[in-house]
Amino acid sequence: MLVMGVDPGLTRCGIGVVIGTPGRAELVSAGVIRTSPDLDIARRLLQIEAGLEEWIAAHRPDAVAVERVFAQHNVTTVIGTAQAAGVALLVAARHGIPAVQHTPSEVKAAISGSGRADKAQVGTMVARILKLDAAPKPADAADAVALAICHAWRGSASARLAAAAEATARPRTWSQVVAARGVS
Amino acid sequence: MLVMGVDPGLTRCGIGVVIGTPGRAELVSAGVIRTSPDLDIARRLLQIEAGLEEWIAAHRPDAVAVERVFAQHNVTTVIGTAQAAGVALLVAARHGIPAVQHTPSEVKAAISGSGRADKAQVGTMVARILKLDAAPKPADAADAVALAICHAWRGSASARLAAAAEATARPRTWSQVVAARGVS
Repeated sequence: MLVMGVDPGLTRCGIGVVIGTPGRAELVSAGVIRTSPDLDIARRLLQIEAGLEEWIAAHRPDAVAVERVFAQHNVTTVIGTAQAAGVALLVAARHGIPAVQHTPSEVKAAISGSGRADKAQVGTMVARILKLDAAPKPADAADAVALAICHAWRGSASARLAAAAEATARPRTWSQVVAARGVS
Repeated sequence: MLVMGVDPGLTRCGIGVVIGTPGRAELVSAGVIRTSPDLDIARRLLQIEAGLEEWIAAHRPDAVAVERVFAQHNVTTVIGTAQAAGVALLVAARHGIPAVQHTPSEVKAAISGSGRADKAQVGTMVARILKLDAAPKPADAADAVALAICHAWRGSASARLAAAAEATARPRTWSQVVAARGVS
């Protein structure tokens, strides 16, 4: 599957496009959408939207994987980061492309086998997986590539879970969720 | 000026449209954009975008006022709220409509004279200002109307400040900011 990873941010929004199947991945393209801190937030979000539209038009990904933003993240930037992530989810939905969110720990675990790997270890593993001399630069692009690899490798499992959830007509209570997943 | 206020939220996004000049305001329309918690976040943001597009097409506001979201807000909902606010800012910018953010305290102070007024006091003042028997319902719509009134009443001052900021070519350091504002 062709996956576009998005490492959301207002100043630098990392993008990484990867073709992958569990255990294998090939880099298609990576880069960064930049917006100027001189612009107001509304215009910055508009620029991010325009950049994402270009990337999607150029690559037509099967899925968009966005890093999940938590309220506990850096409080001075978390609102802007959440809004950039929201624009990525919105643009994917507009094109009917499944949009999924992965936590940084999920990405680290998928790439390196450990949810606690540091940035350098993830970069080294990304380069090795993609058979490159070094991880894509800047770091935001490398993080987006790692997200895309994570989703390509987890995607089939996620798709099965999603299909199962659809089939059971969206259970709403915890006991229904447990029942639908066959967990006792 | 015709102002559209947006009280951002994923489940209920309040909208209030007001014509106002400092000290006076008239209600044009108020309501709520709802999205279902059964949908994924990407599709909910897409529905909010579609709803906002309809409101803007119907009213062509001169400005969009959005409640500013802080990282310290309710942590279980703050990310979704921030993303809904981001979509409102984005849609405004797309139409070339100035989008401004006001804090809840600014709204309370503008409406009731006190930044610490409670919801009931703000509702009472909104009804009195608009010469209505009661504040618009639900509460999210009333909050959006209060935001719109706040902006209509503060708008001319904000516009002057924005023009002054443009004229000084966006000072970037704190000392430049202080110098530009004439604060010693």
